[in-house]
Amino acid sequence: MSARSEATAEPWVTVGEVDEAAVVAAIDRRFRVLVRERPWPSHAVGPGDDAALVPAGQAGVLVSTDAMGEGTDFLHRWPAGVRTRGHDVGFKAAAQNLSDINAMGGRATALVSAVSVPADTTVRWLADVAGGMTAAVRALGAERCRLAGGDLGTAQRAQIVVTALGDPAAAGVLRRAARPAPHGQDGAAPDELLLVHAGTNVGWAAAGLALLLTPRADLQRRHARLPADARPGAREIARAVRGQLRPHPPLWAGPAAAGRLVCALDVSDGLGRDATRLAEANGMTAWLDRRWVAARAEELARLGRLCDADPRSWVVSGGEDYGLLGAAASLQEVPEGFSVIGRLRRGGDSGPDGHERVRAEGWDHFG
Amino acid sequence: MSARSEATAEPWVTVGEVDEAAVVAAIDRRFRVLVRERPWPSHAVGPGDDAALVPAGQAGVLVSTDAMGEGTDFLHRWPAGVRTRGHDVGFKAAAQNLSDINAMGGRATALVSAVSVPADTTVRWLADVAGGMTAAVRALGAERCRLAGGDLGTAQRAQIVVTALGDPAAAGVLRRAARPAPHGQDGAAPDELLLVHAGTNVGWAAAGLALLLTPRADLQRRHARLPADARPGAREIARAVRGQLRPHPPLWAGPAAAGRLVCALDVSDGLGRDATRLAEANGMTAWLDRRWVAARAEELARLGRLCDADPRSWVVSGGEDYGLLGAAASLQEVPEGFSVIGRLRRGGDSGPDGHERVRAEGWDHFG
Repeated sequence: MSARSEATAEPWVTVGEVDEAAVVAAIDRRFRVLVRERPWPSHAVGPGDDAALVPAGQAGVLVSTDAMGEGTDFLHRWPAGVRTRGHDVGFKAAAQNLSDINAMGGRATALVSAVSVPADTTVRWLADVAGGMTAAVRALGAERCRLAGGDLGTAQRAQIVVTALGDPAAAGVLRRAARPAPHGQDGAAPDELLLVHAGTNVGWAAAGLALLLTPRADLQRRHARLPADARPGAREIARAVRGQLRPHPPLWAGPAAAGRLVCALDVSDGLGRDATRLAEANGMTAWLDRRWVAARAEELARLGRLCDADPRSWVVSGGEDYGLLGAAASLQEVPEGFSVIGRLRRGGDSGPDGHERVRAEGWDHFG
Repeated sequence: MSARSEATAEPWVTVGEVDEAAVVAAIDRRFRVLVRERPWPSHAVGPGDDAALVPAGQAGVLVSTDAMGEGTDFLHRWPAGVRTRGHDVGFKAAAQNLSDINAMGGRATALVSAVSVPADTTVRWLADVAGGMTAAVRALGAERCRLAGGDLGTAQRAQIVVTALGDPAAAGVLRRAARPAPHGQDGAAPDELLLVHAGTNVGWAAAGLALLLTPRADLQRRHARLPADARPGAREIARAVRGQLRPHPPLWAGPAAAGRLVCALDVSDGLGRDATRLAEANGMTAWLDRRWVAARAEELARLGRLCDADPRSWVVSGGEDYGLLGAAASLQEVPEGFSVIGRLRRGGDSGPDGHERVRAEGWDHFG
């Protein structure tokens, strides 16, 4: 137990004063009875993955829940001048949950939502949230997914919680930790290939967030001052903003990868953090191919200049891409649509040529 | 379509300006594709009941979601001086969802939670929410229920959303509407018996809310002025407050009633409103036995004097009892533990002797 998590035992310590892991540990201790002392059937999956697999019938049902709050996950009006429509909020709230089911290799069967808004919210904005959820299910191709209910309430700021249910693939669930922790095998096992689905626009959602958070006047001034060939075009800007407001997880990729990838999770808190999680869950270290990172950063170079930001940090640390990150045992096992972007290795002293150790930077929800 | 729901089409109308039904109608129109245009298998149950039955395996999985927000569903410190502990919030958030599964005749298998709190919330308060959820699952006897995951975030005010999953009973689900709408049978069909489970402390949660919302000094002054035999005792007061903060839905009653009751729902928005919903879902009207209402109100008479409130209104209009309300075709069909409190009748012109027509008063979430 770290000094920081010990500190949470004091009654005056607030969630803003410790790191998220310490908060989660304090909560987990109180949930222990509901997690460990009531064992599920062996095929079930408890908390810790992108979704749980709850006993139901023979195969079980996948479940995942995520909240979006005004002021923390979106602003009604961004400094760049863009308004977040109810449509965007509903789309993203649905998409991030559909992504969790996808990351377990499943297909979504139902969404339920709990939406709380201030009394001065327009009915149209609220109805647009429903329209956005509906649009996400259709646009992302979640063909079996229906709405199964919801709850409406008032709150000081808008808060949208979506819970998704899903059918696991016949080949089984795609988990974060694929195997028992290694015992004295350090260095003996071969590397695994770190993959990301090509439908994952790594770094673009972070670029969009940086754009949205930059005051409109600053964007206009900087844009005018950039040399003509260094100015991002309207399409690039729109792609980044859309990546942040309306992420497109590749829902066909998860079920196709079930039974082929060794392990997987969705890229929600940033490539670096999520790749580190994937590696650590399997007793390994994660290494990124420098050329791949450079190529991704190059695509974002003009947006980086506009926002006065390092596009490399968007690629490695930016969150909310909602793509699919996984590992394959060999090149023959790489499913269609996935790109090799690095390695997972037992032991962390030295990496493959041309690779760098992944840093666990990314989103800390109480940071 | 009423004038009020037509009004929601105007872009400036806010949710605080129209009734909840109009808001729900506006949302439902946008969800139509996800509800009606993608038919589920015939045994599935879509939105509108206490829980939905989502396809999963042969029997399906029940799902329900409910939010609790600071400022709307609870206060950190009530005018009466009582503090709401994280434990209470977790307990109630779990209990109201377990109640929804119970009302469908099912047994809960899993809870997931999305908890958002301000950064200055103590870790202890947040951990107590988890402790309260765990305590509810144990105290209410939801033996198969485990925690399946959650989401943590920040918000300006605490917001706890719990989603419960459950197994339907082998006898099938207990629905709000038991049969197709009647066609020209008005007056021909016999009455049904309106039942409430004896574990339902009708009106006590409302009495607890009235107590909590009365300033401490007023309670003390009024208590001192009441004649000794009209003063509520400490146990009565504690029972009412506990009824509001930590409701105890009778989780054994739902599965036992599946296949026996004609229809059912849980008493969340008030007996009057929920009995009216039950009746209207079946093309009937609801009538309450005057003697039963008087007897329940009599139990609350001393608390009524303390709060300067009519205890009858707590019984008929008070919400958050989380009991089980249902209908049986005959006295032989009344399951153990249920009391007959009125009638459901086709046609609403005249009621049975000694009964009064139920008014649809109760909670309107945007009222």
